[in-house]
Amino acid sequence: MAKKVNRKIRMGMVGGGRGAFIGSVHRMAANLDGQIELVAGCFSADPKKSKLSGQDLLLDSSRVYSSYEEMAKTEAALPEGERIDFVTIVTRNNTHVAIASAFLQAGIHVVCEKPLAFTLAEARQLKRIADKSGLVFALTHNYTGYPMVKEARHLIQKGKIGDIIKVVAEYPQGYALADLEGPKENVGAINNWRMDPHVSGASNAMGDIGTHAAQLAYYMTGIKIKELSAELSTFIPGRPLDDDGNCLIRFENGAVGIIYASQVSSGEENNLNIRIYGTKGSMEWHQEYPNDLILKHHEKPRQVLRRGNDYLTNAAKDFTRLPFGHPEAFIEAFANIYLEVARAIRDRLEGKKPKAYDFPTVDDGVYGNAFIETVVKSSGSKQKWTKFPSV
Amino acid sequence: MAKKVNRKIRMGMVGGGRGAFIGSVHRMAANLDGQIELVAGCFSADPKKSKLSGQDLLLDSSRVYSSYEEMAKTEAALPEGERIDFVTIVTRNNTHVAIASAFLQAGIHVVCEKPLAFTLAEARQLKRIADKSGLVFALTHNYTGYPMVKEARHLIQKGKIGDIIKVVAEYPQGYALADLEGPKENVGAINNWRMDPHVSGASNAMGDIGTHAAQLAYYMTGIKIKELSAELSTFIPGRPLDDDGNCLIRFENGAVGIIYASQVSSGEENNLNIRIYGTKGSMEWHQEYPNDLILKHHEKPRQVLRRGNDYLTNAAKDFTRLPFGHPEAFIEAFANIYLEVARAIRDRLEGKKPKAYDFPTVDDGVYGNAFIETVVKSSGSKQKWTKFPSV
Amino acid sequence: MAKKVNRKIRMGMVGGGRGAFIGSVHRMAANLDGQIELVAGCFSADPKKSKLSGQDLLLDSSRVYSSYEEMAKTEAALPEGERIDFVTIVTRNNTHVAIASAFLQAGIHVVCEKPLAFTLAEARQLKRIADKSGLVFALTHNYTGYPMVKEARHLIQKGKIGDIIKVVAEYPQGYALADLEGPKENVGAINNWRMDPHVSGASNAMGDIGTHAAQLAYYMTGIKIKELSAELSTFIPGRPLDDDGNCLIRFENGAVGIIYASQVSSGEENNLNIRIYGTKGSMEWHQEYPNDLILKHHEKPRQVLRRGNDYLTNAAKDFTRLPFGHPEAFIEAFANIYLEVARAIRDRLEGKKPKAYDFPTVDDGVYGNAFIETVVKSSGSKQKWTKFPSV
Amino acid sequence: MAKKVNRKIRMGMVGGGRGAFIGSVHRMAANLDGQIELVAGCFSADPKKSKLSGQDLLLDSSRVYSSYEEMAKTEAALPEGERIDFVTIVTRNNTHVAIASAFLQAGIHVVCEKPLAFTLAEARQLKRIADKSGLVFALTHNYTGYPMVKEARHLIQKGKIGDIIKVVAEYPQGYALADLEGPKENVGAINNWRMDPHVSGASNAMGDIGTHAAQLAYYMTGIKIKELSAELSTFIPGRPLDDDGNCLIRFENGAVGIIYASQVSSGEENNLNIRIYGTKGSMEWHQEYPNDLILKHHEKPRQVLRRGNDYLTNAAKDFTRLPFGHPEAFIEAFANIYLEVARAIRDRLEGKKPKAYDFPTVDDGVYGNAFIETVVKSSGSKQKWTKFPSV
Repeated sequence: MAKKVNRKIRMGMVGGGRGAFIGSVHRMAANLDGQIELVAGCFSADPKKSKLSGQDLLLDSSRVYSSYEEMAKTEAALPEGERIDFVTIVTRNNTHVAIASAFLQAGIHVVCEKPLAFTLAEARQLKRIADKSGLVFALTHNYTGYPMVKEARHLIQKGKIGDIIKVVAEYPQGYALADLEGPKENVGAINNWRMDPHVSGASNAMGDIGTHAAQLAYYMTGIKIKELSAELSTFIPGRPLDDDGNCLIRFENGAVGIIYASQVSSGEENNLNIRIYGTKGSMEWHQEYPNDLILKHHEKPRQVLRRGNDYLTNAAKDFTRLPFGHPEAFIEAFANIYLEVARAIRDRLEGKKPKAYDFPTVDDGVYGNAFIETVVKSSGSKQKWTKFPSV
Repeated sequence: MAKKVNRKIRMGMVGGGRGAFIGSVHRMAANLDGQIELVAGCFSADPKKSKLSGQDLLLDSSRVYSSYEEMAKTEAALPEGERIDFVTIVTRNNTHVAIASAFLQAGIHVVCEKPLAFTLAEARQLKRIADKSGLVFALTHNYTGYPMVKEARHLIQKGKIGDIIKVVAEYPQGYALADLEGPKENVGAINNWRMDPHVSGASNAMGDIGTHAAQLAYYMTGIKIKELSAELSTFIPGRPLDDDGNCLIRFENGAVGIIYASQVSSGEENNLNIRIYGTKGSMEWHQEYPNDLILKHHEKPRQVLRRGNDYLTNAAKDFTRLPFGHPEAFIEAFANIYLEVARAIRDRLEGKKPKAYDFPTVDDGVYGNAFIETVVKSSGSKQKWTKFPSV
Repeated sequence: MAKKVNRKIRMGMVGGGRGAFIGSVHRMAANLDGQIELVAGCFSADPKKSKLSGQDLLLDSSRVYSSYEEMAKTEAALPEGERIDFVTIVTRNNTHVAIASAFLQAGIHVVCEKPLAFTLAEARQLKRIADKSGLVFALTHNYTGYPMVKEARHLIQKGKIGDIIKVVAEYPQGYALADLEGPKENVGAINNWRMDPHVSGASNAMGDIGTHAAQLAYYMTGIKIKELSAELSTFIPGRPLDDDGNCLIRFENGAVGIIYASQVSSGEENNLNIRIYGTKGSMEWHQEYPNDLILKHHEKPRQVLRRGNDYLTNAAKDFTRLPFGHPEAFIEAFANIYLEVARAIRDRLEGKKPKAYDFPTVDDGVYGNAFIETVVKSSGSKQKWTKFPSV
Repeated sequence: MAKKVNRKIRMGMVGGGRGAFIGSVHRMAANLDGQIELVAGCFSADPKKSKLSGQDLLLDSSRVYSSYEEMAKTEAALPEGERIDFVTIVTRNNTHVAIASAFLQAGIHVVCEKPLAFTLAEARQLKRIADKSGLVFALTHNYTGYPMVKEARHLIQKGKIGDIIKVVAEYPQGYALADLEGPKENVGAINNWRMDPHVSGASNAMGDIGTHAAQLAYYMTGIKIKELSAELSTFIPGRPLDDDGNCLIRFENGAVGIIYASQVSSGEENNLNIRIYGTKGSMEWHQEYPNDLILKHHEKPRQVLRRGNDYLTNAAKDFTRLPFGHPEAFIEAFANIYLEVARAIRDRLEGKKPKAYDFPTVDDGVYGNAFIETVVKSSGSKQKWTKFPSV
């Protein structure tokens, strides 16, 4: 019979030390719902950096490790409820397979950053290990986590836009152009591991972000690629790997398509977007405005479906934390208040002199009540203007 | 000398039990950065509901209270580092003052939902208590937490748009119209405490959301209202309070303005938006698309400033968790993967049969590596089409 | 029995000489459909300027007049089919009544710019004359001419959004701020007749553009204003009339609303927009993007209705020249080619040396055919790349 | 010495009879500026239809021809100033060369619809004739006529976005899908001459609209295609020509790109759009919103340049009829009033009973003056509400 587990799920992390962007995103995502707690980690191949990162994260120092091998072994030996339930791997591409294998073999579930592996052969090898282990293995193709992406997938499955005949998935970024603007000696320098074939693998732009576009197309339509025609280009002089790639696609069901990715599209941020055309309608979704799903049908008004509404299906609703009209940034805006409050309280606990903090206070509350009362008073008055009380 | 406090800040909560929307937002916001942990609460005036909510939140049952008075007293008696550092109050409008006062008097910092108080007189009384206590008191006028709102405020302070001459702040919602669509007996029923003058106070629409518009105008410009001319209306038959309100405003510096709020604007979600006009330029910000700040100048191209870019000032950067191009929903999309992973792991820990979970797996990783390798192969080939391996 | 009139309708114009913006718009509008021809005019109170303007317009000099009185008298004496059928009046506000009266009394139909008259008393007087004459009298409240405005009106009449409860109509412009940027001696100068109370009337901003917002609200809803509360402001120092105005509105049917207009809203162009809220839905229309009509209903996906589609009613279709997806600017883009072609031909007729003209030529046609053939050739080829022929 | 030609340029038309969409667009475009008048035509290969179309257009019946050969010969024999100065050819693709050659050989300037010719060989032959004639030859690649396209081209020439490295030009339409929705016998029927290889040429979708995308890319960048890799597809069963096409492009300067066109992209109208990426910045333009040109630079705020502003260059200004903030549809909205006025006047001239016409009248003018006066009165009053006079 099933027992009830009344505790948070325990997470460990490999990689994601000080200054690592994606590690911090993983931790915030894991924190959000109060279901998971970070209890252990090996945050860097440099033991000292790993320790400091563990301190930043307020971890017990005995659970901060110097190597992932040590971590896998030590954690596996702890009793259930104390040891980590799963590990999150946020290291560079060429290390995923070894690390993931070590934890799987220690009986620990795995969440792994993409791309899964350095090569297809390695990926297949890891798949065999994962399948054999029977453990949970999640790959953070995070764009599939957006509620409106899930809604789109569900509507497509239900036939809302008929048979798919064309897919256009684009992922232009512009950040790599920064290298053309700085000192000349930087041009062509491999100042980002994604450009280094020994770390990144056979492709830079298509491997890093083209795979997101490809995976999104697959997730939303359920249709795999049959064959493709690709061109990879390198526009930043001296770089060994592509910074731009364009593909014509033939899908298994006869649909055609385009997938492209670029890191040299000036001024683009993360403009991942996808348009899926079917025989009965089409859909359009833009990652930078993820709460809108645009639905088009021949000779009908365009529809904009928005996250949080009752008219959506459970595909979206099951992954929705906020009602309509409040973008997810609403939580972060709230969190900004909490962060300042935590800082203010910590300053006091530490005996520091209070500073100017950026959160609304009781004074704003008095202003608000003054507003309400003045509005009500004015609404009942025949005079045009009602004075606002001094607050 | 300042000591270092190497632990999370401890939060308690009053209100926010099962089914309460805003309580859950506060908890997610507090969880996000891993700086705060929820350790105690009185989640409902109904002790049973409070206990069940505490279980949902995986709290130690000894820290789940039946009344806020008990909670304030018991927590205050615990040693520092164990007791809550602050309390978050997410109860109904008419209870804020009593609860906040109790915790302040017990020496506990306070985060309180808005509006601060039931009346202006009460608000002033609470201000006296808060000021005297010297404790942290934050009011969650959350819209001021958006990075681009902070950027706008900073740019205005620096004179970017000159002297402010006009402000238009709007907050239309449409949800209350649902009452016109259901069974007739529901029309006019007070099915939401915001419509009940004994709970909500003197105003419904203007009190609940008009205050957000007013506060946003004040936060961004730093200019207070001098006098106003208002009309409150009630369009849903039988309701005692306003569901729509419109105001002409005169600000203290001579600027004019409009503030309006509505709950009967059909199809509007939370369309809070503000336009601020100065002698040298103007700004426009829409809450539903919070990462864009539109800057206009006479006879210059319009500019769209976007969260996360280096060209922004620290006013925004200090409250930014993600680089440009990833809306904050990016974290929630990640969190959706973690939520499913936690569910999958919990199911296994509880001995349940695995289900179909909605997260990418090792198979998606193999597909991704296949994509990369096929793209690279095709790019080096003179043949138009390169087969995709079976995966 | 009705005879068939197989000729263009003949137009005269009063005002609209060299450099006048709105006169030129009227002429282009009258030209567009090939149903109307301009044959006479008194283009300026200055006879010399009137003659020169007539030459620019390629008119017979005998039909270019020195005064509107002479024009009305002379034209009325010509036989039908030769004389003007109607006159268009595009002079300043304070002259409309006298000129319109003169033509009406001469039995000539009238198209008149708004505002109709200098004062309400004058307007009523002109109404009596017009009504008595039985002649066609059109006032160019041009925003009512947009197809999607007509569609909105029709849908509202049919009950699509239920009973109207709120209307927000805004018309911010920013052009007047230019006066704050130039030499100091210009500030406060009446460098535009709209600011001169002797020419413009009792109001500047509200008279010039606020009336457009008011009229649009009336046209679309069919509901008149019952009472209003207004504030007019002047932000450009030294000006006698308002450059900004804000009104709270009560409509005859019990709806409430806001109408505002401004010429000092920095960076705004002609941002006329209207939102109409009913008990069953709402509509939103923006003049700067006039082909989109946004339709919202509580808890349904937002719809975007676009000009030119079959799903629209005849209210829009009867006034639509282009199919969907081509904004009206499509005609002007075509006209730009014709304008250059006419210039090229005129240069040759006049014996001038040909210049570089900006229109596509036979070379572009060869390029186009080369593109088609190369695409077809490549599509049938197994080679990845197909050379483009040299053209 | 140059003589002055004080008359309109005279246009003839071949094709464009009753019901033809593009012929009517050409006439409106030629009418717009009052520089060109239509005086002759052969509107259909069917002489009867040609005559009736000539009547619709209020032409002298002696100038309405039964064949283009007759038209070219007869017109060429008329004296200058009476004969047509140029002919516009709006017939089907396979007839352009013969018709254009006939008029060129008769010494008459030519405006011709695209594609220029049925094949590349024919196109080259026509080019030789046109070049030899020394006459004006314009091809209506109309999208190059948009002011913001001209601005973009000019800014690119000036180096605003550096060296071009990537171009993405897309033209999805969805109209052909209508054939999948009707009776089965229609599927695959060639119900549109564009699908007939004997009329349309070697390609349908790429020939009809893909060429627009290709030409736009060429016009804006000045860079030709070096080689391409294409796939043409047919999704509507039974059709002989493509309804979808996708190309990878290599440009002569080393830039890469994508050009695609589709008639089976459900719900798309004429979504022609182009993104041009350079080493220093990028540009984005959407035909359905043609007055906005989006300019992006790495790590700078996005800019939206809008037609009609002083900050634009003469490249755009020379082809701009309206100031900022009024989209070109403004003219058509005006023209809708004139069209109704012409109808009202024609009805009276023909002795018909007046109907309800859709244009504002003197009553609207009275309402407008009432609005102005009430606003001014209210603004000066201390009372909140001022009654609106009965009008």
